[in-house]
Amino acid sequence: MNSTANTSAAPSRTPPRAKSVAVIGATGAVGAEMLRCLEQRNFPVSKLRAFASERSVGRTVQFQGKPVVLEALTAAAFAGVDIALFASSSGVSREFVPAAVANGAIVVDNSSAFRMETDTPLVVPEVNGAAMSGHRGVIANPNCVAAIISMALWPLHQRVPLRRVIASTYQAASGAGAAAMAELEASTRAWLDGQSFTPKVLPHPYAFNLFSHNAAVDAVSGYNGEEDKAMNEIRKIMNLPQLRIGITCVRVPVLRAHSMSLNLEFAAPFAVEDARRALSEASGVRVIDDRARNYFPMPVDASGADDVLVGRLREDVSDPSGCSLALFISGDQLRKGAALNAVQIAEQLT
Amino acid sequence: MNSTANTSAAPSRTPPRAKSVAVIGATGAVGAEMLRCLEQRNFPVSKLRAFASERSVGRTVQFQGKPVVLEALTAAAFAGVDIALFASSSGVSREFVPAAVANGAIVVDNSSAFRMETDTPLVVPEVNGAAMSGHRGVIANPNCVAAIISMALWPLHQRVPLRRVIASTYQAASGAGAAAMAELEASTRAWLDGQSFTPKVLPHPYAFNLFSHNAAVDAVSGYNGEEDKAMNEIRKIMNLPQLRIGITCVRVPVLRAHSMSLNLEFAAPFAVEDARRALSEASGVRVIDDRARNYFPMPVDASGADDVLVGRLREDVSDPSGCSLALFISGDQLRKGAALNAVQIAEQLT
Repeated sequence: MNSTANTSAAPSRTPPRAKSVAVIGATGAVGAEMLRCLEQRNFPVSKLRAFASERSVGRTVQFQGKPVVLEALTAAAFAGVDIALFASSSGVSREFVPAAVANGAIVVDNSSAFRMETDTPLVVPEVNGAAMSGHRGVIANPNCVAAIISMALWPLHQRVPLRRVIASTYQAASGAGAAAMAELEASTRAWLDGQSFTPKVLPHPYAFNLFSHNAAVDAVSGYNGEEDKAMNEIRKIMNLPQLRIGITCVRVPVLRAHSMSLNLEFAAPFAVEDARRALSEASGVRVIDDRARNYFPMPVDASGADDVLVGRLREDVSDPSGCSLALFISGDQLRKGAALNAVQIAEQLT
Repeated sequence: MNSTANTSAAPSRTPPRAKSVAVIGATGAVGAEMLRCLEQRNFPVSKLRAFASERSVGRTVQFQGKPVVLEALTAAAFAGVDIALFASSSGVSREFVPAAVANGAIVVDNSSAFRMETDTPLVVPEVNGAAMSGHRGVIANPNCVAAIISMALWPLHQRVPLRRVIASTYQAASGAGAAAMAELEASTRAWLDGQSFTPKVLPHPYAFNLFSHNAAVDAVSGYNGEEDKAMNEIRKIMNLPQLRIGITCVRVPVLRAHSMSLNLEFAAPFAVEDARRALSEASGVRVIDDRARNYFPMPVDASGADDVLVGRLREDVSDPSGCSLALFISGDQLRKGAALNAVQIAEQLT
């Protein structure tokens, strides 16, 4: 049916006013990726300020081809900042986010400091962008596992309600920062050269090895901090407080993209073709599911990409009811798992 | 209660008669490991014969410090062989296992050729050693994933009946043979040196990458051949034809130990402490589960070890009934996943 009720021209959207943007932790793996995302997405930046730890102050980072001098973080430094992207530790966020907000900045915080506070939206724009409207100066950027998994779960949950998630992760070095990535490379080279290597950043040998995630393990439950974060944050992002989730987080010798094997149970039978269609139509998701060529999501393809790659889509044959699906996904830990998602949140603020 | 009924001395067991043993595929990763297992376990070998493909014939391998000349495989070559350990392809097994049996040898076959035949026992000695008694000349050695997972499942199933298995694997290069291990090393060195590398053994880049297992994928079910083998073989080894299993097989850049993340559902609630005790008492299993030190099963510790390492033992919190457990295991693909298990089977024949 044609509608003739509204024949006016589309309203011309006012171009967003350029913003003064601060990146806190600009020399880290996530902070550096935030600068790249701001550049690549032509974020309207009137002034870019970069903050780092004491030992980097006075050095420069590049932004849009020009050097930006790294500043020391102080409470007063946020004067005039519109948007502050925090890519630092929870301790730094706890100390300086309140000052940034008090100075009038809106904060997108990549740390876990405020993620589970009830008045702090925890946002993956494609999933719960609307939750941002309730913010009180701080919007939390999720844990990388939670962000990447939510991208695959949400389009499916729109078709058939999700009941249970079992996930095993294959997490890259980048989640532990640039120093861990360097340690993976250095320890692997030492191994190949027959040299000994003592790990300093991560607690276990990393060359051609893997290990349970290095976050502290709860003595009673046996779950580690990464698993607890991911499970709690997925429930909050999807607004499914009763969702049953069990996650096992493992670090593998991969540099910067996280992969996950997912077994999902739904409230009703879910045909694989319906699931594939839902994922194919989802923004920020790319289906890579070529059975004939044995081509599925891989870190090498996800690295540097914005989309979360989804494949190995099939019935979970361990559930005879037809209500369960299995899939395998891969997403860039530094992009959708951190910096890209933060900049997407910031875009909603312009 | 003390028993006085039997006061005779323990019967002295006759030392096993030394056997003429043949290893078929003696230059491959599994065949070479079989030679090491025979040596290390002091298998009673009267004569060791080693078979390899045409291009290796006439060269030698070492056994107990002496060179053994590699022979060409012919039907007639099995005359006088008591035990033939096949570590070759399914094609070679299909062609030569019948000849070995016709010549009076008992075959332990590491290929998948006969595993699912009803009159061929498929054996993990700690699980179903008794099934060997029904053999008709051939005993099949399981797929590496099936053997390693069965070691962890069986002691638990003895306490509380197992109902459902969800597994995601982290499989090493060794499962694709010595050439794949060499390709992982060479491609990683090339990556570190900034050189390009074209994979020849495996279909995808392997350096700091992972990918869905390279076995062919069923166009209808979406499961690959490795997953189908593992699911079917676990059911046969455990004699649980109705066991519900869903497995996702993934190759990770690790050299020779396979790891698996397991989510297990039982017929009744299963306390973590009871499960830990069952695993601690199981032969061939070592519990590595140090929550305080964050020390759990790792390929670097499993490599070269005979035991399957089991840890991350905890309630699967996605199942509120208390009937589900999660754990993470690591086992040497070449030892328990192949050569060791084959030699353990052969030991039952002496």
